[in-house]
Amino acid sequence: MNMKRNELGLRPMSFETSFTTHPDGSCLVRMGNTWVMCTASVEHSVPPWLQNKNQGWVTAEYSMLPAATHSRTKREAVRGKQSGRTQEIQRLIGRALRACIDLTALGERTILIDCDVIQADGGTRTASINGAFVALALAVQKLQKNKAIATSPIKSAVAAISLGLKSGKVLVDLDYEQDSKCDVDMNFVMLEESRIVELQGTAEHAWFSAEEAQNMLAEASKAIEHIIQQQKEALA
Amino acid sequence: MNMKRNELGLRPMSFETSFTTHPDGSCLVRMGNTWVMCTASVEHSVPPWLQNKNQGWVTAEYSMLPAATHSRTKREAVRGKQSGRTQEIQRLIGRALRACIDLTALGERTILIDCDVIQADGGTRTASINGAFVALALAVQKLQKNKAIATSPIKSAVAAISLGLKSGKVLVDLDYEQDSKCDVDMNFVMLEESRIVELQGTAEHAWFSAEEAQNMLAEASKAIEHIIQQQKEALA
Amino acid sequence: MNMKRNELGLRPMSFETSFTTHPDGSCLVRMGNTWVMCTASVEHSVPPWLQNKNQGWVTAEYSMLPAATHSRTKREAVRGKQSGRTQEIQRLIGRALRACIDLTALGERTILIDCDVIQADGGTRTASINGAFVALALAVQKLQKNKAIATSPIKSAVAAISLGLKSGKVLVDLDYEQDSKCDVDMNFVMLEESRIVELQGTAEHAWFSAEEAQNMLAEASKAIEHIIQQQKEALA
Amino acid sequence: MNMKRNELGLRPMSFETSFTTHPDGSCLVRMGNTWVMCTASVEHSVPPWLQNKNQGWVTAEYSMLPAATHSRTKREAVRGKQSGRTQEIQRLIGRALRACIDLTALGERTILIDCDVIQADGGTRTASINGAFVALALAVQKLQKNKAIATSPIKSAVAAISLGLKSGKVLVDLDYEQDSKCDVDMNFVMLEESRIVELQGTAEHAWFSAEEAQNMLAEASKAIEHIIQQQKEALA
Amino acid sequence: MNMKRNELGLRPMSFETSFTTHPDGSCLVRMGNTWVMCTASVEHSVPPWLQNKNQGWVTAEYSMLPAATHSRTKREAVRGKQSGRTQEIQRLIGRALRACIDLTALGERTILIDCDVIQADGGTRTASINGAFVALALAVQKLQKNKAIATSPIKSAVAAISLGLKSGKVLVDLDYEQDSKCDVDMNFVMLEESRIVELQGTAEHAWFSAEEAQNMLAEASKAIEHIIQQQKEALA
Amino acid sequence: MNMKRNELGLRPMSFETSFTTHPDGSCLVRMGNTWVMCTASVEHSVPPWLQNKNQGWVTAEYSMLPAATHSRTKREAVRGKQSGRTQEIQRLIGRALRACIDLTALGERTILIDCDVIQADGGTRTASINGAFVALALAVQKLQKNKAIATSPIKSAVAAISLGLKSGKVLVDLDYEQDSKCDVDMNFVMLEESRIVELQGTAEHAWFSAEEAQNMLAEASKAIEHIIQQQKEALA
Repeated sequence: MNMKRNELGLRPMSFETSFTTHPDGSCLVRMGNTWVMCTASVEHSVPPWLQNKNQGWVTAEYSMLPAATHSRTKREAVRGKQSGRTQEIQRLIGRALRACIDLTALGERTILIDCDVIQADGGTRTASINGAFVALALAVQKLQKNKAIATSPIKSAVAAISLGLKSGKVLVDLDYEQDSKCDVDMNFVMLEESRIVELQGTAEHAWFSAEEAQNMLAEASKAIEHIIQQQKEALA
Repeated sequence: MNMKRNELGLRPMSFETSFTTHPDGSCLVRMGNTWVMCTASVEHSVPPWLQNKNQGWVTAEYSMLPAATHSRTKREAVRGKQSGRTQEIQRLIGRALRACIDLTALGERTILIDCDVIQADGGTRTASINGAFVALALAVQKLQKNKAIATSPIKSAVAAISLGLKSGKVLVDLDYEQDSKCDVDMNFVMLEESRIVELQGTAEHAWFSAEEAQNMLAEASKAIEHIIQQQKEALA
Repeated sequence: MNMKRNELGLRPMSFETSFTTHPDGSCLVRMGNTWVMCTASVEHSVPPWLQNKNQGWVTAEYSMLPAATHSRTKREAVRGKQSGRTQEIQRLIGRALRACIDLTALGERTILIDCDVIQADGGTRTASINGAFVALALAVQKLQKNKAIATSPIKSAVAAISLGLKSGKVLVDLDYEQDSKCDVDMNFVMLEESRIVELQGTAEHAWFSAEEAQNMLAEASKAIEHIIQQQKEALA
Repeated sequence: MNMKRNELGLRPMSFETSFTTHPDGSCLVRMGNTWVMCTASVEHSVPPWLQNKNQGWVTAEYSMLPAATHSRTKREAVRGKQSGRTQEIQRLIGRALRACIDLTALGERTILIDCDVIQADGGTRTASINGAFVALALAVQKLQKNKAIATSPIKSAVAAISLGLKSGKVLVDLDYEQDSKCDVDMNFVMLEESRIVELQGTAEHAWFSAEEAQNMLAEASKAIEHIIQQQKEALA
Repeated sequence: MNMKRNELGLRPMSFETSFTTHPDGSCLVRMGNTWVMCTASVEHSVPPWLQNKNQGWVTAEYSMLPAATHSRTKREAVRGKQSGRTQEIQRLIGRALRACIDLTALGERTILIDCDVIQADGGTRTASINGAFVALALAVQKLQKNKAIATSPIKSAVAAISLGLKSGKVLVDLDYEQDSKCDVDMNFVMLEESRIVELQGTAEHAWFSAEEAQNMLAEASKAIEHIIQQQKEALA
Repeated sequence: MNMKRNELGLRPMSFETSFTTHPDGSCLVRMGNTWVMCTASVEHSVPPWLQNKNQGWVTAEYSMLPAATHSRTKREAVRGKQSGRTQEIQRLIGRALRACIDLTALGERTILIDCDVIQADGGTRTASINGAFVALALAVQKLQKNKAIATSPIKSAVAAISLGLKSGKVLVDLDYEQDSKCDVDMNFVMLEESRIVELQGTAEHAWFSAEEAQNMLAEASKAIEHIIQQQKEALA
């Protein structure tokens, strides 16, 4: 794949829908060399705390295949637990997807999203959100096709992007090498029309100003608008 | 305690230093009815991945006592693992404290921060950071007093605050009831002079704009400036 | 606090009732520098094996905050399990409290006691029992006040004390330093009027005679009588 | 086996030495229908905290085979952890055996005792101690035979017995049925010459007096003297 | 015991029925120095996935006592999980026993088999199957005696044997020393009349031909026929 | 993909080498709708028990992505442990690969194989072995290219196939539907020239004869010969 970034600084991106056939929705998302297999599985029940509340639920699980990283990572099933990082990411993905759907209109169903990173080169959590939305939308289309629900409960597309700050300059869609050199790292999740649903900024060895945060936010809006366009094309 | 908020919207706040005597630094922080026992324990070793790198480490553990919450929470030691939420919070506290200290100047030592929530009424993670900084500073003072280090490796105070957005209005230092009603919830961690080191905003059932984010950031700056002043008085 | 022992050899003792506000009963007990936060939470259900037996249950959980000890102890939630020592202690506390209450008169409720050691200086298990009784009694008072039960199911106060034998001499209410030097260590739990409900004696590097056991028992009776008086004053 | 109790109230007892051949010491102890396979394995190392202290260690593990009890118990290896009861018992067995041996004279070795209950009919912890002493002594004999140590580090035999109180009457060596009906349950561990090393008394639904404790202790002394005689015959 | 092998190469074998008294069926099987305590416990329920299907279930658990092996093995309950080897073996035992019984005729009951290896000298999984069948048959006899079932659901005896290949020569009923020297190791499970239900062959450092597999199979048939005869005598 | 089986009954098969770029060897194997991502990671160390023995090691881990199956499977990292089935399969893959390589010639290195099933339609363990061999061979080629080793330690290709017996008829390369209907299920692992290294046959609700085992073995030989040819073409 030609790895040239576009005018917004985004790496080449693709959404391969129906990559596998068993799940209700399946999408292999590629953002540069970061590849995530995202699937959506519909279960006809809800978690205990939502029973008899006439609403559905969307939740996510995230995992990095051991050989996805530059040097192999220990398998979490062998270690016997998910790391703090994994749990943090899958909670983020779940919140992002619940922001784009009307859980009452979904009915008493759970849509379980699995994001399994096949190859990692930076931005696995934002790529996961981008692919997960496509898988979710495919599962909803299937529910509609099967007449299980009449109208789509999806209120908006949702997408995410990571940005960094390196010597005062904003970088978009960080790959692994950029990510390890940045002073500041921010992730944004937005609905259509730049409506923010999640925003996380961290400066491990530095700090940033309100103005810099604002600049990154502006760049993120443009990138997310572009990604949402790609998602829509993939779903068309 | 009189629970009236001050002109910045902050609940009454206190830092009870040297609350217990065994740890190297100990502080009971109270922000309204949220009380956290923060301690700092100095260990004369570093984690394996830092060995022979001539630097120290600061890390944190967080826990909610089972009876701290409105209705009792199951004990994590009984469940056999820390929840995703707990891990997310203790990773945040650790990053916040590492941002305020020169790890090389600290030398080959680990300062382990424990934040145990004795009573919870919203904002336990931000109160933990506020109290943890005081405990950390006390432990560093002790190292200086014992001539273990000559000059303090602490570069700046660090403090944190939570803010919310309710029907477009900014609320500061959310208590439990406010927190459960807000559309948007943001946490800020800053060094002195409004230098941001961490920023997290989440909208579970709504969304927010770039302008609203900017407004919350401005309020947060003022609140954190006030908290840092209180920390300094407690340490004086 | 003035740490002078009284004429029975007991360290200064205090029961701070309603230390925190969420639990049904809450008491911070101090015996010298050993401080334990004891809370009682009422649940309107019973464990599976007691269902439909027209009786209630009282059980306890115990934990040492990591920074409570002279040198920091590893957190059990991080280790992923409670130690054998922790389990042994919480089983003891549970038995002690069940001895003082009429479980049938309690009705189909569970009272869950949490004993979290904030600072440890010997005798944490006996201090836990002393404070836990106060928390339990407060929770029962609240049930009576709310008209949930008409008369108190508590049949007697219950209290505990540790004693040691050092070169043939009986020591009462051992602090950490004494405890580590004693040849023999005995714990007693009694109801009012010196009625024994639990008694445990251990000689790690020595042994003791029937007569010595009898002597320690006599001293324990007097100490426990005094503690029960303090508990009653705190509850008045 | 004829199950008639002897004049001290003890059930028929036997020590089948060298029951299995791989361990350094092996003994199948039977006290009535309670059968425990006790083995001693010598390891030529000590736990980390004893390194370079010129002494050895004795420790114990206890387990109930699932089918040992009247109704099958869930296997602890399947449940993924040892119960609080199991840990309490194995800690008791370890302390009892360390009381009878000179750890310095043992040298830098660990003797690991395994007590696996093959059939349970009350008193499994006291039977375990009785059989474990025989297995330990056999392992020490083997060390002497192999010239690894010159003189035995064992200072005294050690044995244990359980007693109960039913309507004021003392019962010795309780079987399962007696145990479940007793008001009070006491376990004693003694060296030769009635030297007490451990004593535990519990009254789940009743209480007992100092005088009753003294009576049980007197009966325990006689029973233990008899058991020690049987151990010595088995080892002769 | 005289350890001379018989004309088929089998070690001396015995089935001690009703070894312990609590389980519904109990058998201590000895094949040379490999001793396994096998028990069968009848539970009047079935696993969730079999509910309302008018059939029963047979399943097995396997464990090696720590001191059963030449050098002591770490206890699985202490390690907190069963090893892959243990799980592989207990799955094999379960399949073998389900092959010999009509689960519908058994009715809605679960027979839980426990195989606890008391002494290990090679072939513990095959000895377990041989003893487990006897325990199972005894439990079924008891169900018939209690009129819980009219006719036995057991369709055939089932037995197992291990064979090895050493320098082209077939060895039967491998002991530990033989097992560690063989190039190829095969286990066979058969019903009466040489009907194969399970067959597993492994060559860790070598390989084998179709012809060699056939030779081992022929020897296994004869050995299993002999074992089944012994099982029937024990059950008579 | 055209899913027509070939004249040996095998489903269409493909080996996509260098599917991902981080691991030392990477291969996506497809056998019909069963897809497994197999990778090989070289580590420059050996497990503790092989240290200073002048040899290397090959081991494998296996996992089914949750959405790979017809109905979603619970994630093992969430359940906190690998199932018995998973462990059984990864032990099999490890043994198969160690059979094809000279561990001494490999030198003190560990080659860690990961087999992650992306889509499952029967025969995941045998497909894993087929793809794992290709990944292993690629990693060895890379070691040779980097001059880390002079000559390849691989002695032969290794491949595997599953067969079934349905009403006496042999079926090859079972898909999920066939697998669930077969009376007997056999897996074969062979080196070149029909040299058997592993053979496992199971009859859950039926049995099979020596003659039927022999017939399956003959079919397996032909299928494996064909697979090995495909592996060689992929590696050419």
